[in-house]
Amino acid sequence: MPHRYLNLTPLSGVLAIMQQEFPSPGRAEIVALAESVGRVTADPLYAGYSVPLADIAKFDGYAVKSGETLGAQDQRPIPLVGYARINTGEVLPRPFDAVIMVEDTWDEDGIPRIRKSAAPGQHIRRAGEDVRAGELVLPKGHRIRPFDIGALATYGIDRLAVRSVRIGIVPTGSDLVPLGTTPGPGETVETNTLMAAAYLTGVGATCRRYGIVPDEPGLIREAVERAVAENDLVLLSAGSSAGTRDFSRDVIEEIGEIVIHGIAVRPGKSVLLANVGGKPVLGMPGYPVAAQTILREVAGALLSWWGLPSIPCAGMDVRLSRRLASDLGFDEFVPVSIGRVGGACWATPHPRGGGIQMAVVRANGYIHIPADREGIEAGEDVRVRLTVPPASIERTLICIGPRDPAFTELANRLPDSGYLLHCCNASTVGAVLALRMKTCHAATVVLPEIASAWSDQVLRYLPDAHLLRVPVARTEFGVASAEPLDAGSLASLRVTGRPRSVAVKFLLDAWFAREGIDALPSGGSPDVQVCSALEARAAGLRFTSIGHETCDLVVREEFAADEGVAALIEAARSPEFRAYLRAAGRDPGEGDAHGTISP
Amino acid sequence: MPHRYLNLTPLSGVLAIMQQEFPSPGRAEIVALAESVGRVTADPLYAGYSVPLADIAKFDGYAVKSGETLGAQDQRPIPLVGYARINTGEVLPRPFDAVIMVEDTWDEDGIPRIRKSAAPGQHIRRAGEDVRAGELVLPKGHRIRPFDIGALATYGIDRLAVRSVRIGIVPTGSDLVPLGTTPGPGETVETNTLMAAAYLTGVGATCRRYGIVPDEPGLIREAVERAVAENDLVLLSAGSSAGTRDFSRDVIEEIGEIVIHGIAVRPGKSVLLANVGGKPVLGMPGYPVAAQTILREVAGALLSWWGLPSIPCAGMDVRLSRRLASDLGFDEFVPVSIGRVGGACWATPHPRGGGIQMAVVRANGYIHIPADREGIEAGEDVRVRLTVPPASIERTLICIGPRDPAFTELANRLPDSGYLLHCCNASTVGAVLALRMKTCHAATVVLPEIASAWSDQVLRYLPDAHLLRVPVARTEFGVASAEPLDAGSLASLRVTGRPRSVAVKFLLDAWFAREGIDALPSGGSPDVQVCSALEARAAGLRFTSIGHETCDLVVREEFAADEGVAALIEAARSPEFRAYLRAAGRDPGEGDAHGTISP
Repeated sequence: MPHRYLNLTPLSGVLAIMQQEFPSPGRAEIVALAESVGRVTADPLYAGYSVPLADIAKFDGYAVKSGETLGAQDQRPIPLVGYARINTGEVLPRPFDAVIMVEDTWDEDGIPRIRKSAAPGQHIRRAGEDVRAGELVLPKGHRIRPFDIGALATYGIDRLAVRSVRIGIVPTGSDLVPLGTTPGPGETVETNTLMAAAYLTGVGATCRRYGIVPDEPGLIREAVERAVAENDLVLLSAGSSAGTRDFSRDVIEEIGEIVIHGIAVRPGKSVLLANVGGKPVLGMPGYPVAAQTILREVAGALLSWWGLPSIPCAGMDVRLSRRLASDLGFDEFVPVSIGRVGGACWATPHPRGGGIQMAVVRANGYIHIPADREGIEAGEDVRVRLTVPPASIERTLICIGPRDPAFTELANRLPDSGYLLHCCNASTVGAVLALRMKTCHAATVVLPEIASAWSDQVLRYLPDAHLLRVPVARTEFGVASAEPLDAGSLASLRVTGRPRSVAVKFLLDAWFAREGIDALPSGGSPDVQVCSALEARAAGLRFTSIGHETCDLVVREEFAADEGVAALIEAARSPEFRAYLRAAGRDPGEGDAHGTISP
Repeated sequence: MPHRYLNLTPLSGVLAIMQQEFPSPGRAEIVALAESVGRVTADPLYAGYSVPLADIAKFDGYAVKSGETLGAQDQRPIPLVGYARINTGEVLPRPFDAVIMVEDTWDEDGIPRIRKSAAPGQHIRRAGEDVRAGELVLPKGHRIRPFDIGALATYGIDRLAVRSVRIGIVPTGSDLVPLGTTPGPGETVETNTLMAAAYLTGVGATCRRYGIVPDEPGLIREAVERAVAENDLVLLSAGSSAGTRDFSRDVIEEIGEIVIHGIAVRPGKSVLLANVGGKPVLGMPGYPVAAQTILREVAGALLSWWGLPSIPCAGMDVRLSRRLASDLGFDEFVPVSIGRVGGACWATPHPRGGGIQMAVVRANGYIHIPADREGIEAGEDVRVRLTVPPASIERTLICIGPRDPAFTELANRLPDSGYLLHCCNASTVGAVLALRMKTCHAATVVLPEIASAWSDQVLRYLPDAHLLRVPVARTEFGVASAEPLDAGSLASLRVTGRPRSVAVKFLLDAWFAREGIDALPSGGSPDVQVCSALEARAAGLRFTSIGHETCDLVVREEFAADEGVAALIEAARSPEFRAYLRAAGRDPGEGDAHGTISP
């Protein structure tokens, strides 16, 4: 019997439930100092001894009795009488009480001379100047930074107690295959536990990944019981959705108590939290982006409550480039790419599916739409969390439009210039609107190669803009068939496969009209496929051309002088990139097309 | 012959010199995916196959032919005829073209029924929706984030090439003893190489620490030659100052060429950069804070140029609470503690010595005073770099005044409330000025216990303030002597040891005046020491009281209701903290003293 999520718990209420149910295990472990960076102190740390241990010289020079240097003047230099050569860091020998820097002396007949008397205590580091024996160095709950390491070592601390949470991560699912295996159809590489371990280890937890458990209640129960016995927190990866494979819930109900089934969060809804023998067992959703949300917002909140705070992402106030709808009652997290265009920082959303990991990889931040909002309007100011260092936003170029592999290759060539290219998928109409609203540095524009395309589909929306166009690819499309097409077969075709762009659909419709073809999506004969000439050739099929599609990089001329945009244009025009396009079998469409277009 | 830093290189010119001298070694290494977090991709990464591999179900339910569901309506439910049970993620079997969610069906006589027809393609994840085979996943030069790991694994990438720089770190100095050893006088624990390795490993370099090399030219030469042969960059820890132990320069001049000796930066001036066989050898200063500056600003800049960018600290605009002087021509870095007091964020400097590591440990950021500035004025807006997550600034309480171990204990008790206490050392006068300027949440005020002290030393500077005072310690001071003091010995005393505070000096002078004592800092007899009653008792000496010193925590009443300040006051007043003070032999001075003070 499939379970439903009838009573979704609001995300805002999850922490309080966990605090109620799961007190901190309060675990600590002793680690060597060199291994402690990023860990959180379990106890306060005190200095084992004073630093410096005794009064020491601050500079290289001479230890003197200050009283014996009285009277030295520019006009009346005096030789040092009783002194000792001393180096930086050496203990001031008795009975000296001051140091004269070697730079303030000169030798005559092997005897150093001075022009200025020394004040008592001059150029001496007093015992305990840095830290006194027994003084607090770090309070408990402090995350160790690399430069803390040197201080702790200096103060005699070579091992220390850090907070520790033992997390067992159990992947479940008969469809899972281990990393390093090429999945067959219907198989999934087991990756969520690797990601969970990487994320939670970074917070300071000690993670243990168990082997893949197939969808058999007995095996799942055995694995959960073992993981609960060996850890403070158990994550079950997948197995918490409402399908026939959903044994986790039934198994856990036998051995523990369900605390939460379903959280009003997207992605990430299908999550399970149970109490097994007093310990939390968290069933993560199987979709990777959903699992990330639950790791960050649920597991992260629990660990924070247990004394291992998350590494907070930097926040930034930006403007949203296009409307984001969201259901009331659901906290939603949306990956975005942020860049500064002209004066303003704009965030452009990536697709939101729980399975679309590339959206998170491509993004440099995310937006949290709270449960009490029905969405965020285009142009609205919004707070984002960054998943990259804030400084990199200033070096990020946003390109909006249909995604083309050629552009990812451009993204690859830019880092040498210090800039990062973020491509956000949109239709050509979306790209043109982004140019109009100035929410992107560049747009990709894909058009059928016909005379009126630019004025009909681009320039009419940009009446005041001067555009710079860099052709990237010109592709011949047509229909591929096993047999040559004759007049008879042209009269009625069955076209399989969807045209991959509006431009190709346009070319196809125009060809139908030109040739008087009666094309049915699911009828007629013979079967033909819409594809590029290249693809038809590769497949060894007959090819009948219907025309060309052009793909261009387009920027507003006013931005073309910006250093980053200029670097992008230069990369797109470079002979190396044109050569790459030709090597990939594409026609970059060189020639007159370069240049400015105005309405 | 000691070397001088006659031609200091400006910090701003160092990178250009390094770029000229040291091209990137361009080294990469292959690491397992699980080990790659924080590393930087050496090559672009492409997807090994499409994800999903084939069209799959988005939800648990039924695979159907959409054409066979036509006509289903609320008023006229229909049973499914040809269908297959399908789970989330399973491949859609031929010839089905849509999925109906199990939630949208109900069973009657074992046959699922629907009220709504299915659109073609409904609830299907298309092959390649996430990524297409051969598509770029990450460009080169990308620092791997924990959530990138899951995507890379999903796309079949289980090993990858990351940029690598091999760094050899050689500690030199006969005064150095290894970590784990308690240093004798004049010995220093070898800590800078540990700190350097922690910092540079975090950037993505592969560090190797060599054993301590004593100050013998032959041994240093041998160690440097070996490290140069085995690494891309060699750091020499210490040995680059101008002392007699400065063999590094002479040794390196024999086997290579000095590129830079001395950089106009504080702390960190005494740095050496040489070219040995085409590889950079960087002689770091021995003072740990100076070494940190050189690691961050010089080694970090070189690694960044070589493709391993530093992990940038977050920046923040704050106001400086007291003047910072700086020499023209020197770039200076000053550790500060930053907190939000009232509406503004204030940065209060810590001591700047290259040996005072506690200043960096206590700080949550640092200020860079550029070479063309002679200093920064109190109240001036200034950009700081944070060494903690930005969010923690909002939870940081700044306490200014004489440092007292009792306050570090308070710092230890606060984290449970979510707040962090930063104590910045200053005189009581400095503390009162900070209260006046509202640059701190709280001040420590140390006064002699005499009737006029509060009005004379505090309230007169705060004519409009209502203050809340929490007594923390009341300490009896006096003079300790081996023999009882009689009228004769009181007539003339030799006082050794400096009074530890202005308050104690005040008590001493008042006692001298009261008793008609002729006290000479370096004459008279018998020798007496100024100390607390506790210390005299511990040393078994006779004690003659001169009065009490009070140490109070003081806040402006207007801030007392702030959640953080209230937590601080509660901690300071808590029976546990009072008990701790008494256990430490201190008199918390309970009673009437609590409360509000106004002029």
